[in-house]
Amino acid sequence: MTYELFYWPGIQGRGEFIRLALEDAGAPYVDVARGPEGVKAIQRVLRGEGFDGPPPFAPPVLVDGPVVIAQVANILDYLGPRLELAPKDDAGRHQALMLQLTVADLVSEVHDTHHPVSVGLYYDDQKVEARRRTTHFVGSRLAKYLGYFERVLSRNAAGAQLVGEHVGYVDLSLFQVVAGLRYAFPRAMAAVEPSVPRVVALHDRVAARPGIAAYLASPRRLAFNELGIFRRYPELDLVAGE
Amino acid sequence: MTYELFYWPGIQGRGEFIRLALEDAGAPYVDVARGPEGVKAIQRVLRGEGFDGPPPFAPPVLVDGPVVIAQVANILDYLGPRLELAPKDDAGRHQALMLQLTVADLVSEVHDTHHPVSVGLYYDDQKVEARRRTTHFVGSRLAKYLGYFERVLSRNAAGAQLVGEHVGYVDLSLFQVVAGLRYAFPRAMAAVEPSVPRVVALHDRVAARPGIAAYLASPRRLAFNELGIFRRYPELDLVAGE
Repeated sequence: MTYELFYWPGIQGRGEFIRLALEDAGAPYVDVARGPEGVKAIQRVLRGEGFDGPPPFAPPVLVDGPVVIAQVANILDYLGPRLELAPKDDAGRHQALMLQLTVADLVSEVHDTHHPVSVGLYYDDQKVEARRRTTHFVGSRLAKYLGYFERVLSRNAAGAQLVGEHVGYVDLSLFQVVAGLRYAFPRAMAAVEPSVPRVVALHDRVAARPGIAAYLASPRRLAFNELGIFRRYPELDLVAGE
Repeated sequence: MTYELFYWPGIQGRGEFIRLALEDAGAPYVDVARGPEGVKAIQRVLRGEGFDGPPPFAPPVLVDGPVVIAQVANILDYLGPRLELAPKDDAGRHQALMLQLTVADLVSEVHDTHHPVSVGLYYDDQKVEARRRTTHFVGSRLAKYLGYFERVLSRNAAGAQLVGEHVGYVDLSLFQVVAGLRYAFPRAMAAVEPSVPRVVALHDRVAARPGIAAYLASPRRLAFNELGIFRRYPELDLVAGE
C-alpha cells in the first residue's frame, strides 16, 4: 500500500510533519504535487474529485486507498498505529494527539508572527503588525511552549520521548519545531535552549534516527525558506525584551 | 462513570464544544471549576497533580477516571464513540476529526479578530490591529469557511449532517460556531447566511434536539460575553467591503 501525500511542493510547511513520520517508518509514499501533475493534484483533491466523503479544506491531505483525510494531527493519529509511531492503547493515543495539537497551536502562532493580519496579504503588507506580534511571541509564548514540552519530558519515566515507551510521531514533530524555530528565530532560541535541555536532546536523538538522518541528507528534504511557516526575516529575529 | 470537565467558569469559550456533546448525550458530568473549588481546580490539573502522563497545556481538560486529556478536538474524538456522537469506523472517525479541526481553525481565526497581536494583551491594546484583521476575516475567511461546510453538507447523501449517517459532535460544534458568529458579527452573518442554507438548517436542527434544547434553556448555558471567543464589539461588526 503506497500512501499519497498532497502538499505544496516548494516548502516544508505543515506537510513536513507528515513526511517525517512516513520517512522515519520507511513507509512507501508519493509526494504527489512534487510529481508531474504539480499543484493541480492538490486542487483536484480539494475539489473532492474521485472519492466520497467530506473534501479537505486545505493541504496537507493523505490518501490511503479510499480514505482521504486532512489536518496534520488527524493524519498523524491515523498513521500512528499503522507506522508504529503512537501508543497502542486508547488513553495513550489521546495523550499523543493532545500533545500534537499543542504542537499545532505553537506552529500556528509561529505562522502568525509573519502573518498577523491575514493569510491573504503579503508579509510586506503587515510588517508593522508582524514585528509587534513577534515581540510578544519571543517575549513570552516561545519559552512557555518549550518549557511545557520540557516539563512533559521530565514527567515521562521512560525519559526519552514525550509519551509512552517509544519515540512516536509527536517526538518527530517536536524535532521539526526546534529545527524550524532555530531557523526563524536564532537569537531567541539561543537564549531559550539552555533552559530546555530535554527538548534539545530529543531533537538530537530524532535527527540521528536512521530514517530521519537519511531523509535529512536526501534531496527530498527541502530547505527552510521564506514561503513556509518558519521564516527568517532579520527584522523579526528578536529576543525577549526587545 | 461521571466525566469531569475543567474549564474557565465565566465563559462558553472552547469548553462549550465539550459541554454540548455531553449535554446532547445526557452524559453525567461535573463542570468542576463552576463548583466550590473554582479556577483552582484548573490550576491543579494543569500542574499535573494526581495523575500520571503528560499534563495539559491549557483548558478545556476532560478527566475520565485515570484518563486526563486536553484539546477540544481530541476530547471530542475520545468522547465520540462513548457518547455515540461519531462514526464507528476508522475512516469515518478521521473524517469527523478532520472536520472538527477545521472548526477549530475557524474558531482560532475568530479569536484572533480581537486578539491579533497577543493573548497577553488586552483588546484595548490591540484595537487598531483587531479592526484590520477583522476586515479580512469578514471580507474573505468567514464566507470561505461557511461555504466549505455548506459544500460538505451538500456532498453527504445522508443529507442532514456533516459526516456519516447520524448527527455527531462536529454538527453540534458547527451549531455553536453559527450561534457565536451571529453574536459577534451580526451584520456579516446576515449577509452570508443566505448563501449557506444547509449550514443554517443544521444549526436549527441541532438547537431543536432534546438534550440541546433543554441545555440552552437551562442556567448551565452561559450567555455570550466579551471575555469569550465570540465577542460583540460594535467597531468590529463589519461586513465585506468595509
